[in-house]
Amino acid sequence: MKTWEQLIKGTLDGNVRSLARFISKVENRDMGWQDAMTQIYPYCGKTKVIGITGAPGAGKSTLTNAVTALLQKMNKSVGIIAVDPSSPFSGGAVLGDRLRMCDVGTLPGVYIRSMATRGMLGGLCQGARDVARILDAFGKDIVLIETVGVGQDEIEVVKTADMVLVVCVPGQGDGIQAIKAGVMEIADIYVVNKADRQGADEVVMDIQGMLELSEKKVPVLKTVASSHKGIQALVDEILLRMNQQTSNDQFRKEQIREELLSLTQQMVFQYIYEQWQNTGFLTQAIQDVLDNKTDPYTLVNHYFEQIKKQEAIKNG
Amino acid sequence: MKTWEQLIKGTLDGNVRSLARFISKVENRDMGWQDAMTQIYPYCGKTKVIGITGAPGAGKSTLTNAVTALLQKMNKSVGIIAVDPSSPFSGGAVLGDRLRMCDVGTLPGVYIRSMATRGMLGGLCQGARDVARILDAFGKDIVLIETVGVGQDEIEVVKTADMVLVVCVPGQGDGIQAIKAGVMEIADIYVVNKADRQGADEVVMDIQGMLELSEKKVPVLKTVASSHKGIQALVDEILLRMNQQTSNDQFRKEQIREELLSLTQQMVFQYIYEQWQNTGFLTQAIQDVLDNKTDPYTLVNHYFEQIKKQEAIKNG
Repeated sequence: MKTWEQLIKGTLDGNVRSLARFISKVENRDMGWQDAMTQIYPYCGKTKVIGITGAPGAGKSTLTNAVTALLQKMNKSVGIIAVDPSSPFSGGAVLGDRLRMCDVGTLPGVYIRSMATRGMLGGLCQGARDVARILDAFGKDIVLIETVGVGQDEIEVVKTADMVLVVCVPGQGDGIQAIKAGVMEIADIYVVNKADRQGADEVVMDIQGMLELSEKKVPVLKTVASSHKGIQALVDEILLRMNQQTSNDQFRKEQIREELLSLTQQMVFQYIYEQWQNTGFLTQAIQDVLDNKTDPYTLVNHYFEQIKKQEAIKNG
Repeated sequence: MKTWEQLIKGTLDGNVRSLARFISKVENRDMGWQDAMTQIYPYCGKTKVIGITGAPGAGKSTLTNAVTALLQKMNKSVGIIAVDPSSPFSGGAVLGDRLRMCDVGTLPGVYIRSMATRGMLGGLCQGARDVARILDAFGKDIVLIETVGVGQDEIEVVKTADMVLVVCVPGQGDGIQAIKAGVMEIADIYVVNKADRQGADEVVMDIQGMLELSEKKVPVLKTVASSHKGIQALVDEILLRMNQQTSNDQFRKEQIREELLSLTQQMVFQYIYEQWQNTGFLTQAIQDVLDNKTDPYTLVNHYFEQIKKQEAIKNG
């Protein structure tokens, strides 16, 4: 068993095995994880995090691969966080996606980490933040967070990124579908992938039509990720926007705010939960509700009023 | 403005407008909502809640309609909670689904409530629990919780139900897809809808094959909801299982436990958040992190250690 100290040193030195162990221990919320994150924090801040989302079948993995391969050629090191909602149940990722991902996984300088949407002790968003930060300290220039689908959880995760790519494809009304599902507001760049298919221009026009209602200027780019078409233009756009985005304090403040609230919520809950477990309060409370001696609302309210009376939760 | 007292009385008397107002006020966490829930609590406990989930396009709405219409004929009153992840963004439900739902919405004794997956102050799961409970007090025999898709949020919501239907369709590997997405563990009944399509038997066999690995006995039924085929058999199965399920203490305890934890988490978090807002602590904390005076982990940890020292969060 490596100590935190060893893992931190290894991670900062660019050791991939230390990195993997470090991430696992933080994900598991092993004792001392916060202190470890604090120790690597000064080494963070250089990485740009890019979220990639879109409906299943839009070719997000292929696009992620193509973008990664090009960045790699440009001497940028890349980390990939693959957010996979099916993992906790099926015990693994959707096979096709991950298989395809292997071709970049073997490239030097590319590190891939899968992350399940369930069973994350700190919640998925904070998990993604933590892993991206560790990859930052490890020295990655760019971290791509790729989601399998476009569910609410996945939207929340990509929102933790500095920039969001929304991927659409022609056919099956996917373009419109993605917009309906509410990803419009979060897109910094729209990508119409599989643009060699019929209807690609219609999808571009649909998106542009929707965007006219918005104040935000969002480019719509066409790619054929499988044959690397349009990838250079996409990467150029990404890098251009990255530079523009620097020192946007308002955006950073929003990010910090979300993180503080998410960390606090998790810690408070975990503490209460442990207390309840240790004291037997929870078992008794469940029994009381079952026996109709009380109801959940009264019980929780009563518990909570006591906390307030003790003026416990002070302002820091 | 009706008072809580008036709304409670109206709801218990079967007044639909009071019911709608009551639900809205609870969803908005209006002052006094907990006390209102406590007051209706003694009138609850008769309703059975059934979750209906499955991939988009599986025909869940049509199935919900068909089941509702039949239950209606059998003199059972039905409430429907339509969980719609797109609502908060698009400002409304997926049009097709809701239009179709109108045919049962106009039946006497059927009440439909839409619920968005975002912007719910108490979280989606607790929101569904609250609404189901209010419908219980209102006098509904059965509440159906229907999700649009099969995302993680939606799985969590149907898990609050007493019984879960997972709907699959032939074609596009949907049967297997649903299983992969992790809904297998939560299904009490599998429904292969659109069973007049080619490949229906294969889907049934696929599911049965997967089920062989499981200890739970889960029936797989075929329906064609659009022409009401197989609906009687499905409803019979639902009612049969409802009766069997009565007085399963272990199951109830798990439900209560989830609810207590979810209510507590929400209340504590909301309290901290308000405190932070009011005292300016949050604004200062964000600025400190932005200025690199501290990091989120240290800051939250420090705040939290103070709480612990005050021995604030006692065991109830």
